[in-house]
Amino acid sequence: MQTTYLTAAATLLSVIVLSPVRADDLPTKAELTTPTIADVSAVSPALERYTRDTLFDGLWQRPGLTPRDRSLVTLAALITRQQTALLPPYLNLALDSGVKPAEISEIITHLAFYAGWGNALSAIAVTKDVFVQRSIGGDQLPAAFPDLLPLNQAAETERATRIEGQFGAVAPGLVRNTTDILFRDLWRRPDLAPRDRSLVTVSALIASGQMAQLASHLNRAMDNGLTQAEAAEALNHLAFYAGWPNAFSAMPIFKSVFAGRPHLQN
Amino acid sequence: MQTTYLTAAATLLSVIVLSPVRADDLPTKAELTTPTIADVSAVSPALERYTRDTLFDGLWQRPGLTPRDRSLVTLAALITRQQTALLPPYLNLALDSGVKPAEISEIITHLAFYAGWGNALSAIAVTKDVFVQRSIGGDQLPAAFPDLLPLNQAAETERATRIEGQFGAVAPGLVRNTTDILFRDLWRRPDLAPRDRSLVTVSALIASGQMAQLASHLNRAMDNGLTQAEAAEALNHLAFYAGWPNAFSAMPIFKSVFAGRPHLQN
Amino acid sequence: MQTTYLTAAATLLSVIVLSPVRADDLPTKAELTTPTIADVSAVSPALERYTRDTLFDGLWQRPGLTPRDRSLVTLAALITRQQTALLPPYLNLALDSGVKPAEISEIITHLAFYAGWGNALSAIAVTKDVFVQRSIGGDQLPAAFPDLLPLNQAAETERATRIEGQFGAVAPGLVRNTTDILFRDLWRRPDLAPRDRSLVTVSALIASGQMAQLASHLNRAMDNGLTQAEAAEALNHLAFYAGWPNAFSAMPIFKSVFAGRPHLQN
Repeated sequence: MQTTYLTAAATLLSVIVLSPVRADDLPTKAELTTPTIADVSAVSPALERYTRDTLFDGLWQRPGLTPRDRSLVTLAALITRQQTALLPPYLNLALDSGVKPAEISEIITHLAFYAGWGNALSAIAVTKDVFVQRSIGGDQLPAAFPDLLPLNQAAETERATRIEGQFGAVAPGLVRNTTDILFRDLWRRPDLAPRDRSLVTVSALIASGQMAQLASHLNRAMDNGLTQAEAAEALNHLAFYAGWPNAFSAMPIFKSVFAGRPHLQN
Repeated sequence: MQTTYLTAAATLLSVIVLSPVRADDLPTKAELTTPTIADVSAVSPALERYTRDTLFDGLWQRPGLTPRDRSLVTLAALITRQQTALLPPYLNLALDSGVKPAEISEIITHLAFYAGWGNALSAIAVTKDVFVQRSIGGDQLPAAFPDLLPLNQAAETERATRIEGQFGAVAPGLVRNTTDILFRDLWRRPDLAPRDRSLVTVSALIASGQMAQLASHLNRAMDNGLTQAEAAEALNHLAFYAGWPNAFSAMPIFKSVFAGRPHLQN
Repeated sequence: MQTTYLTAAATLLSVIVLSPVRADDLPTKAELTTPTIADVSAVSPALERYTRDTLFDGLWQRPGLTPRDRSLVTLAALITRQQTALLPPYLNLALDSGVKPAEISEIITHLAFYAGWGNALSAIAVTKDVFVQRSIGGDQLPAAFPDLLPLNQAAETERATRIEGQFGAVAPGLVRNTTDILFRDLWRRPDLAPRDRSLVTVSALIASGQMAQLASHLNRAMDNGLTQAEAAEALNHLAFYAGWPNAFSAMPIFKSVFAGRPHLQN
């Protein structure tokens, strides 16, 4: 794992450091705004130091969360925060760290619903280029209509009944879509494991400062297999990619969710 | 209405599907980042399906909110979330759905105050191109200093007095600007009806996850003629364009506002 | 001061008004999306009026906050809200208003932590171009490892102990990073005065609608020398650049912080 990761980190740095060269005369979307390490150094030698030492040699090397999981968290944060200029190197790092193209496809689709349609479409525009560069074709992508994972009928009925009771008369279309499109369809798509889907959802909520549904999705994530240590380290990771204030706003919610669960989790 | 809308939807799809062709050798802002349906399909056949079936053939076809209102809501969400790459097709859809150029002009101006100056200026950059393409000139735009709508003197005095009492000593400049620029000027500009202005404001608040002023603006919107059914369907619409978490955070506020109003509304 | 500012404002307007001309055939990042005043006028004569009269001739001319401070607040808001298309004219205005290149460098580095890494990197991409145009080289930038300002050992130990007690077992990595990287390193970097660093932090929190840590950072800002009148006028300024809803959500917190402090402040 460590070897794989070091290779991946080197790839990331070289992607960022080396200026891209293209034959045609139009800049790509990514070329227009992705800064190189030389750009960072030309404005802030301190930020270059923090990027190298604190972020790549520090945070990404920490145990507690695998490089693959860190990639899921980072992609979710970048897409949710619409930082598409940074997506190409992180998409490459994710693919080099073991995230499958099908999983990236599902992350973007999932975030259409959890971060907003425009965020997903903006991510599409740059991801397409990375897929082309790496010769990733339709055979590696999830079907539009796959066989869905089995439904936990009891749990889903409980959720649907509770929300229908609370809000069915307030926003009937939204309540119905939540059941039919999200919980009976999207969440059951098989090409992103429920645990990973939950990690992406939790990351998106923190990355956009939306704390109201965080407790329920963090509980769902841990029901789906995310450990307390992984959740805590994902929060540490998100402090860098979503800013300290978002991470600190999430901390009391993490504390309360952790306290409310059986102690086997960690 | 339905016929008009189907035409408009077809226009939208063709705009998105067909790659734009331009004579000059520089990419336009929109060409750089607006994904085509083919791009979506190259990354996620599932997202293509949801975009076609769930969004365009589903959501946009639902009764309860006219295509024109859906355009107002969507433009407000895109501008507030600074998703300018998606604006051109939606601006065209709005114009094809009956939103007047003068109303688009007012929406952007209104959102300078409610979403932030930079959001409005970013929207200007792409809207200008759409206006040029459609030969929309200054004669179709609202004057800088139009005759203002009459002021509801009693209601506005009550609001101004209340805020002055609460915050006049805390942030005197801001409190005065709120009265002089927003409620005695901006809100009285005649080229966007108060009901539409309210719908845009409510949409902007939800689209940016700002729930603190939502109750007061939703009440104002309903005072200005927005029905409960329209408000509820706008929330359903915004779940897609602003993400499910924002819509769910707004739901309890909608519930409480609906409950506090006379029952004739629906 | 007033003369300096009028010059700076004229510079800003001319930068925005005059279309940039470049020899090479690729658009710069800024040229792609920065609207000119003519663009604004082509979409909304009203917004042109508000931009000229209300913003530049009104807000920026108000006493209570110097043009230099207004630049700090505006840069913090634009970087936090990732409105990089607007950064170039405001970076030039800041430099013309007395903000040093070293301070801009530190603001971006500071916001990597307080607004998110991607926001800082996006700001780098455009700031680099402005620095090149103005021949600002490495000799004007802060060192990666400068001599740090002295630590207020008692206050920092109190803070660290309190947070460790609350959250040390919840997110140990994040709690340790907060002490080691933020409060024992970043905040002590000497090229941005603590009072200015606090003003940037407070502005970033308001600009992103993150109210949870605002009280503690506003108190810290006032401990670091920001007066109540300056804080109030910064809030008025931010209403324009971050939208009225963010400013109004901050107002009760300002009120409560002001009320909790000794009355010498103003």
